[in-house]
Amino acid sequence: MPTERPQSVIARYRSLVDAAVRRALDARGDTELYCMMRYHLGFHPAPNGSPPGSGGKHIRGVLCLLACEAVSGETADASPAAAALELLHGFTLLHDDIADRDETRRGAATVWKLWGVGQAIAAGDAMFALANLTLGELTTSTATIANVLLALNEATLRLCEGQASDLAYEGRDELTVDDYLTMIGAKTAALFSAATAIGAEVGGGSLTQIEALRRFGQEIGLAFQVRDDELGLWGEEPELGKAVGSDLRRNKRSLPILCALSLDHPVAERLARSLAAGVGSDVEAADLAAEMEAAGVRTHCAQMAHAHLARALARLDSVPLRDGPAADLRLLARYLIQRRE
Amino acid sequence: MPTERPQSVIARYRSLVDAAVRRALDARGDTELYCMMRYHLGFHPAPNGSPPGSGGKHIRGVLCLLACEAVSGETADASPAAAALELLHGFTLLHDDIADRDETRRGAATVWKLWGVGQAIAAGDAMFALANLTLGELTTSTATIANVLLALNEATLRLCEGQASDLAYEGRDELTVDDYLTMIGAKTAALFSAATAIGAEVGGGSLTQIEALRRFGQEIGLAFQVRDDELGLWGEEPELGKAVGSDLRRNKRSLPILCALSLDHPVAERLARSLAAGVGSDVEAADLAAEMEAAGVRTHCAQMAHAHLARALARLDSVPLRDGPAADLRLLARYLIQRRE
Repeated sequence: MPTERPQSVIARYRSLVDAAVRRALDARGDTELYCMMRYHLGFHPAPNGSPPGSGGKHIRGVLCLLACEAVSGETADASPAAAALELLHGFTLLHDDIADRDETRRGAATVWKLWGVGQAIAAGDAMFALANLTLGELTTSTATIANVLLALNEATLRLCEGQASDLAYEGRDELTVDDYLTMIGAKTAALFSAATAIGAEVGGGSLTQIEALRRFGQEIGLAFQVRDDELGLWGEEPELGKAVGSDLRRNKRSLPILCALSLDHPVAERLARSLAAGVGSDVEAADLAAEMEAAGVRTHCAQMAHAHLARALARLDSVPLRDGPAADLRLLARYLIQRRE
Repeated sequence: MPTERPQSVIARYRSLVDAAVRRALDARGDTELYCMMRYHLGFHPAPNGSPPGSGGKHIRGVLCLLACEAVSGETADASPAAAALELLHGFTLLHDDIADRDETRRGAATVWKLWGVGQAIAAGDAMFALANLTLGELTTSTATIANVLLALNEATLRLCEGQASDLAYEGRDELTVDDYLTMIGAKTAALFSAATAIGAEVGGGSLTQIEALRRFGQEIGLAFQVRDDELGLWGEEPELGKAVGSDLRRNKRSLPILCALSLDHPVAERLARSLAAGVGSDVEAADLAAEMEAAGVRTHCAQMAHAHLARALARLDSVPLRDGPAADLRLLARYLIQRRE
């Protein structure tokens, strides 16, 4: 069997997730609240004609469908759950944009920028409620529906804890790499692990399968965020997306910055001085990034991502799973730490 | 049997709701996120020593407990649901304060004012998740837990729809009393009706009992909001609370304002002129309120509240209920349209 490219696997499952999210929205109204959600999710222009952003890769929804198949379920069993995960993720991005005062996301104006803060808060809250309601469409037992609803909200609570820490951390000098890992464990990995655990549960997996897939999700969530931070400093400038080096200019303590500050190397002092004074230009940010790379920080980050990947793959190998979807999960996991955007 | 005062009924059940909310929070962490929630709910001062507000009357939680007893359940059966309703209500107030840029609530600085907008959004999101998780503590069947979770999120979605309309309505001239009633049906009454329906469901009520109590909740929710708008214009100035007349000064289309504008009476034109120019002082607001009262607007609002109360009481009379709790529900319903704060 020829090996499929990870992008094609994602594209195939992404279209199923996309359709499920659209169905969840179409079952509801057409008021301003839903206009905001549709715009934010990349489905529809804003009333003023502003084109929406790309809508994202739906990684969490894709992971949920694959986890369901891996325990011998059908994608149709999990599609409301995949939609719920993407609605939940979308709600957190919508609210994060307000907190960070970000004016663009995925190349488009953010919801708060177009509709105002109050409306954007309401749209996010409504997406969270709609995520929960979409789980009511699952055709499993009511016991599973109740479990999955609680699992999604447990992940959301962890995510809010992570978001609150992330905001509290901005500009704090005493922050360590361990603090950072705790924070991304909550802010990013909690929803990845909920995605794979929920997929396995609605697919009828055993308790050991569900637990193995939950931990697989947790580890690739960590790997994903580590890669994200690396791309934030050394990635190629994505078309109209987040500017490379913006973490430096905003004094946001991302992983490479924390690693560099902890080094016994001249770059540590140089970076601390620049952050204290404020990184004033893109040129200065690029110079700092180059120095950090030369000091081995980028390699260290890549090694951390690989360590989480290895633990994730070991979790998958620890339980019997259906071959095809398990291979796709491995492919996807490797892709997440190699992706360029 | 001597008639109990409504305030004593509320106080008795309020302490049960209060204890249930504290238990839900105590089962969780002690991080900044929970500090914000405890402060917002009136349980604890802010880290800077700011004393918290009063914490409110917990009407929704009280209604939930009484509805449970009315169908022959025990208050202990419903206490996680009562806590969930108050956490949910608290979350919406926390986010509304950001949207309205309100700097005080119940005599205390608002969460966003003390912690910033980003943290306040996260605290509200977390309270919503915690409300859902608290329903997982119910000792009923998993089918009931799933139902009740979906009912709470359905109400929240309606509530967000109402909030989005309310924000969109500010300063719009073409708004009618019917638009207003649709808006408060979603923004206020949806959670009241969820409170009584959920109480009846966890108390083991029949479908007709649940439906009657749901509609009872809907009607008293409408009556409650109509009274709220009336107090906003003609109430006594509560100690350090929301200023009387602030709806006029902010050009917020509350019920009395919409009623006055729809009249064939000189006050309609006078009011429209003042709102267009901006009501610049408390004296001007007080003069306008007096003119509106003289034109019969206050009486009309009171009649509307009474009409909803009558429909609510008719719903209660339509099904067999336990005498004591049903009498308390009637007492509470009457109190809500006569209260002075």
